[in-house]
Amino acid sequence: MTYCVALRVEAGLVMLSDTRTNAGLDNIGMFRKTFTYEKPGERAIALLCSGNLSVTQEVRTKLSRAMKDSVEDPEIETLLNCATMHRAAHLVGDAMKTVQKEMRTGMSASNVSLGASILVCGQRKGGKLRLYMVYSEGNFIEATADTPFFQIGEHKYGKPILDRMIRPNTSLSDAAKAVCVSMDSTLRSNLSVGMPLDLSIIPRDSYKFSLRRRIEANDPEFSQISSEWGAVLKAGFDSLPSLID
Amino acid sequence: MTYCVALRVEAGLVMLSDTRTNAGLDNIGMFRKTFTYEKPGERAIALLCSGNLSVTQEVRTKLSRAMKDSVEDPEIETLLNCATMHRAAHLVGDAMKTVQKEMRTGMSASNVSLGASILVCGQRKGGKLRLYMVYSEGNFIEATADTPFFQIGEHKYGKPILDRMIRPNTSLSDAAKAVCVSMDSTLRSNLSVGMPLDLSIIPRDSYKFSLRRRIEANDPEFSQISSEWGAVLKAGFDSLPSLID
Repeated sequence: MTYCVALRVEAGLVMLSDTRTNAGLDNIGMFRKTFTYEKPGERAIALLCSGNLSVTQEVRTKLSRAMKDSVEDPEIETLLNCATMHRAAHLVGDAMKTVQKEMRTGMSASNVSLGASILVCGQRKGGKLRLYMVYSEGNFIEATADTPFFQIGEHKYGKPILDRMIRPNTSLSDAAKAVCVSMDSTLRSNLSVGMPLDLSIIPRDSYKFSLRRRIEANDPEFSQISSEWGAVLKAGFDSLPSLID
Repeated sequence: MTYCVALRVEAGLVMLSDTRTNAGLDNIGMFRKTFTYEKPGERAIALLCSGNLSVTQEVRTKLSRAMKDSVEDPEIETLLNCATMHRAAHLVGDAMKTVQKEMRTGMSASNVSLGASILVCGQRKGGKLRLYMVYSEGNFIEATADTPFFQIGEHKYGKPILDRMIRPNTSLSDAAKAVCVSMDSTLRSNLSVGMPLDLSIIPRDSYKFSLRRRIEANDPEFSQISSEWGAVLKAGFDSLPSLID
């Protein structure tokens, strides 16, 4: 499994993903799930991927191929030259549709799930901060002020803390803390989500990444957040009133 | 959906369930999911049910029918006269198997899931505190010191806090707090779990319930735990170090 989360607050976009993949229970791998595309000062886009790895890798290959081909033929629409973020979500959705169709042909007899979803997060000069969730079918939804975050993969363990902490006016610093705490709870409760992590941040109207950081298992800052959060929960829990005498 | 949780700590058993049921998204109902059986001073047993309601109701009817019939014929084995808690789990499992077989016959053409699981929690005089999880197939597992709690239904939202707080030597008072906090997180993040709640407690070697309490939506003590927990999380979150400058 996987856990990816992306927040769209007024101050920018904050993305965090794990790196664990599994085919069955005994075939564990490590794959990056966050991919970043940038023309600094003009646009910055991150894709966060969950689901069938052969599907998401193929989608990404098609998007990268288009970027390479567009060097020769600038008419080709790509993540880096498309007119809007909405078009970027469409390009990801179209690639997803194509891959699903190609793969399903060979898969009809087998029981393998081709389910996959991709978060498309970014901003281009002249546009707003955008966060989309692209489904296996290629359609997508966009995050709004009412729903300032999207999660894919093992989303349930880490949702309560986001529900409580994330508001449209949350600062980037608090948003980064919140995704780390959300991931920490998920890591502790579900073996199919694992370190290292990839954290990336796009501040509003900067059109570039202010942070693209791999957080390794022994990262001192993440470990501090993790252990202090544990201590905070314990102390807070002890301070709660008792329900029984 | 449903959320039921049962803890087996050294001091006793603590059980909490919600009451929301849904058939599809637009057909919401309220049904008790905790059922208690007691011969005070000799044994106390609670069943917590999740899954297909027609299955769990039928299982419970069979178990109750056996208790009624045993008044005339004391040879009939029931939850209230069986020799051990392990036999009680078997009785629930056998009833589950019978019901699944009966229902599957009429259901073969339809796509309805008959999945269900039941937590069997209790102690009889001369035996230990026991906590079993009975599956749809009638087989079951038992909680041990390594795994002091079982959850059924929407278990993921409320698992992180239990993973952190519950140890074999946790007090009954802390255990009751923990299930309430776990439920509170689940209620906030998932609409398919809803108030009121049923909380019950069997202290070790008492062979009776010290508490069987319905917690309504406006319960002042639960509301206090819920709001104080929210405040504790907020203050603790604010005190965490920042990952970015």
